[in-house]
Amino acid sequence: MSDPNKGRILLSVTGFNPQRWHELLSARRPVTLEPEGEADPSIEYAVVWKQKPNVLARLPNLKAVFSIGAGVDHLFADPGLPDVPIVRVVADHLTQYMTEYVCWRVLDHHRQGRLYRDQKKRKVWHEPPQAPAGTVSVGIMGFGNLGRAAAAALLALGYSVKGWSRTGTTMDGVETFGGTEGLDAFLAATDILVVLLPLTPATTGIIDFDLLAKLRRDNAIGGAVLINAGRGRLQKDADIVRALDEGVLREASLDVFETEPLPLDSPVWTHEKVFVTPHAAATSDPAHLTGPMLDQMDACDRGEALHSLVDREAGY
Amino acid sequence: MSDPNKGRILLSVTGFNPQRWHELLSARRPVTLEPEGEADPSIEYAVVWKQKPNVLARLPNLKAVFSIGAGVDHLFADPGLPDVPIVRVVADHLTQYMTEYVCWRVLDHHRQGRLYRDQKKRKVWHEPPQAPAGTVSVGIMGFGNLGRAAAAALLALGYSVKGWSRTGTTMDGVETFGGTEGLDAFLAATDILVVLLPLTPATTGIIDFDLLAKLRRDNAIGGAVLINAGRGRLQKDADIVRALDEGVLREASLDVFETEPLPLDSPVWTHEKVFVTPHAAATSDPAHLTGPMLDQMDACDRGEALHSLVDREAGY
Repeated sequence: MSDPNKGRILLSVTGFNPQRWHELLSARRPVTLEPEGEADPSIEYAVVWKQKPNVLARLPNLKAVFSIGAGVDHLFADPGLPDVPIVRVVADHLTQYMTEYVCWRVLDHHRQGRLYRDQKKRKVWHEPPQAPAGTVSVGIMGFGNLGRAAAAALLALGYSVKGWSRTGTTMDGVETFGGTEGLDAFLAATDILVVLLPLTPATTGIIDFDLLAKLRRDNAIGGAVLINAGRGRLQKDADIVRALDEGVLREASLDVFETEPLPLDSPVWTHEKVFVTPHAAATSDPAHLTGPMLDQMDACDRGEALHSLVDREAGY
Repeated sequence: MSDPNKGRILLSVTGFNPQRWHELLSARRPVTLEPEGEADPSIEYAVVWKQKPNVLARLPNLKAVFSIGAGVDHLFADPGLPDVPIVRVVADHLTQYMTEYVCWRVLDHHRQGRLYRDQKKRKVWHEPPQAPAGTVSVGIMGFGNLGRAAAAALLALGYSVKGWSRTGTTMDGVETFGGTEGLDAFLAATDILVVLLPLTPATTGIIDFDLLAKLRRDNAIGGAVLINAGRGRLQKDADIVRALDEGVLREASLDVFETEPLPLDSPVWTHEKVFVTPHAAATSDPAHLTGPMLDQMDACDRGEALHSLVDREAGY
């Protein structure tokens, strides 16, 4: 049962039905979907995903904001975002889902799933040359929790793994690159680019034609491949289509898009070289996430420090 | 250069062009594609894949037969097979390829590749429920070198892994079952069945409708899945089609078929729930395999023991 003596939670999301989140959070604290009046002093915590405009600015006693997804760019887009700690989601099940997605897409491109599906349609029995994973370089751009977990799984599958991050985060068994000065060398050594970057002003639109043209195309898998499971606004959809059409990219797997849901008139839908998932690589599961969130709220009430905090200056 | 003082190799294959094998073997020993006369005493070793009929019986000085693939059923089909040691292929690159194939196919079924490809055709943006790997049980039938390597990779990806073999081979982290008496319990605990069995009289046709009906269908991935990367004659193609049509199986990935190449009139080609590869899961690469074969021949000439021998009684 919800404890009426505990500070209320504001649950504010757009783009999906928050019913399950509401049920699970309500089990331990009172939850509201909308602040009352111009300023609602009863609300101490906010759990949000692309929150409604001007709701956070109306909470004078807000102690912390919890983001429902791994990315927090949606929060910084709110001019009314109060100066309170922002807690990101770091959850084993999200890391697990993302690792599955990355390995799945890397294997499908490397092992030529599209070619075999096309051959089946034409009843063609033909075995193309096949390169083992050790000859294929997978470059992970964005080397935080998700990137490093994917790297570990790809290493276990036998791939050559590279990592790039703003700060040059290192990892055993992975050749890592850092900062703007390390980006070209990273791309030139990458056959399959996996994008797991946070969306910040510095990364918005970074996956453009010029960047894709720097990937290694003369490689064991017959061209460069893009996999974006980060954020849609990291990429320029039209540049990806152009890169595919001009042979700069061999194939792409896109879980995210500049506009979501992907508009019906987008050429991505009908492009045969693109595999599309509806922002489903790693789904935030309230059954796994609400417990740790409520525990953090209780800890904060006791005066303990919050963890998994967002760095406002870095923007992620 | 080939050493003329060394015993000759008979290279006998059907179904593919052995030119590359011929070149690589010839670098160290004389190689012939056909015995000379009724009995050819110059040939001491045979390297074969589905050898031509009656060639092995004409080699009075044959010391050993080397199989080009991981399976040796093609050898036992030859009534003229001499009573000499048979050396199987155990090669890291074959194990690597097979592990890639198994993880690729397991991930594509588990992560619903077919559904997403269909949704893309219809421009549908919809996220189905998704179960993490830990809730999915992958059962590997045939738990030799290839099966255990695939099991290790699947464990690293987070799957629940089961193993079945004739002898009940065990492995840390895997629930294993053995013999005929353990088969039903293994199948009842398996959501995705991966077949890596050797083909013997006991396993011919073992993957039939009755066996498939024993898999766990009421599971986190909406049905049972079959992946056969072993031998085509382990399965009954028509039973698989029936199991798919009757909902006993959700999907299948088949790398092997009762008749290969898969006949143009097979219903498998047009079945939307089957993914087809042309016996390409793990390709024997002569660049990797001929060196160890030639080394074993030299060792045998020096009187040393051969390794990776086939057990004739077990048939594999």
